[in-house]
Amino acid sequence: MSGKPAQRLASGGGAAVDDRSVAARLFAILDAFATPAGATSFTLSLTAIAQRAGLPLSTTHRLVAEWVGWGGLTRQDNGQYSLGMKLWELGVQTPTARNLRTIALPYLEDLYETTREHVHLAILDGRDALYLEKLSGHHAVRLTSRVGARLPLHSTGVGLVLLAHAPTDVVQDYLATSLERFLPGTVTEPDAVRRRLAEIRLTGVARMSEEMTLGSSSIAAPIRDRTGLVVAAVSIVIRTTDTANPEQERAVRVAAQGVSRALGYRRAQQ
Amino acid sequence: MSGKPAQRLASGGGAAVDDRSVAARLFAILDAFATPAGATSFTLSLTAIAQRAGLPLSTTHRLVAEWVGWGGLTRQDNGQYSLGMKLWELGVQTPTARNLRTIALPYLEDLYETTREHVHLAILDGRDALYLEKLSGHHAVRLTSRVGARLPLHSTGVGLVLLAHAPTDVVQDYLATSLERFLPGTVTEPDAVRRRLAEIRLTGVARMSEEMTLGSSSIAAPIRDRTGLVVAAVSIVIRTTDTANPEQERAVRVAAQGVSRALGYRRAQQ
Repeated sequence: MSGKPAQRLASGGGAAVDDRSVAARLFAILDAFATPAGATSFTLSLTAIAQRAGLPLSTTHRLVAEWVGWGGLTRQDNGQYSLGMKLWELGVQTPTARNLRTIALPYLEDLYETTREHVHLAILDGRDALYLEKLSGHHAVRLTSRVGARLPLHSTGVGLVLLAHAPTDVVQDYLATSLERFLPGTVTEPDAVRRRLAEIRLTGVARMSEEMTLGSSSIAAPIRDRTGLVVAAVSIVIRTTDTANPEQERAVRVAAQGVSRALGYRRAQQ
Repeated sequence: MSGKPAQRLASGGGAAVDDRSVAARLFAILDAFATPAGATSFTLSLTAIAQRAGLPLSTTHRLVAEWVGWGGLTRQDNGQYSLGMKLWELGVQTPTARNLRTIALPYLEDLYETTREHVHLAILDGRDALYLEKLSGHHAVRLTSRVGARLPLHSTGVGLVLLAHAPTDVVQDYLATSLERFLPGTVTEPDAVRRRLAEIRLTGVARMSEEMTLGSSSIAAPIRDRTGLVVAAVSIVIRTTDTANPEQERAVRVAAQGVSRALGYRRAQQ
């Protein structure tokens, strides 16, 4: 702390500016490891980290050593770096990840046993559906989703449920931008999406088919907290060729209601 | 970067010293949120963070703002702070957490369906069994384990399996320290533990009863990678009062072998 006056001279804007710059550089190094949805996790060389973080190699070398010392990065046998288990240990303690997942998991397992299909649990985070949990059997249809993945709101079952119950300004902002048409069946026209969201609110369930991945369809339902607020969505993803089965939709509703009750939700009409 | 000469003057030991100190202070803030095994995740006030991190309130305020800006901490409505979802998002991308868990999950689900008991997946990390996954039904026996928890090696089924297959120096170091006796039945005498590890290597399974939690017993088996190295352990935790059931042990072995095969392991005798 005795260095502050000199640092202030150096940065020209107070010690905070200098600290922030170190913090920003540290964060840029971890952000270099963020993988897009569907991609596999990876290791990076020091040079690759420096390039992705936009930092000089010497600075990168020094700051990577800081992360390794704390456990945020791990040095592999081949000299490359990967994200470290310390991040995972702290990450699974985040209230949302831990409490919601812990409460929901038995109901997700029931849903998986009943349907034998991929089971997803997702929350709204920014403009994305963030996948908190995914249960899959050995032979389920192949998907790009994974735990920690972010997928669009308008082209996934859980995303549509989350958007249908999002605050008006979130929906307006989302529909104000151009929505990607992943497949011919993807609904992207704002008014058509709005009608769809109204129907989801009315029926309590979202159904979509081949709007994100060829050959896969989804049935999703909202999870509510004690106050009735929709805090998450649960879905199953099935093969589009499978015959429509009313039992599947019922199982998704039962799972969503089970988690909601466990979160303290009681229906107004009860 | 233009500030470096002045920073060097300020810290008296080169710019690296100043950067390292900022990094260490940033890490100390996150470490304030680390919860002991079994504890629930929590939120902390700014004052509590400053106390736990051993930092002045003004520094804490500034660095907490850095973490919030990046997403490593989240400010709750009541003004308290919790770990942020960014940590979870990056954490679930760590190679061990992601690949091992993804590969193992279908087999863990099978094991859960067969036995209806708690299912654990753990790896050796330092002197602890680190719990990567836990599946539990609605009515399983109550336990302190949770995803991300660290539990001792000598008093848990997965821990004994991991210790039985650890390098000799790891076992020696572990047994050189005094082992905690959680319950009257906990085996803590080094030679008794050694005999136990030898038997686990011989039989391919660890059984323990009421050595960590009253009323709960465990059956655990090793998971091997392509090279035959034990990289994880899987277990079920059952009520001690339940009648011993050979089918349960068989189910644990089948699950462990399934994950091992999925990791590329082929038995030498095959």
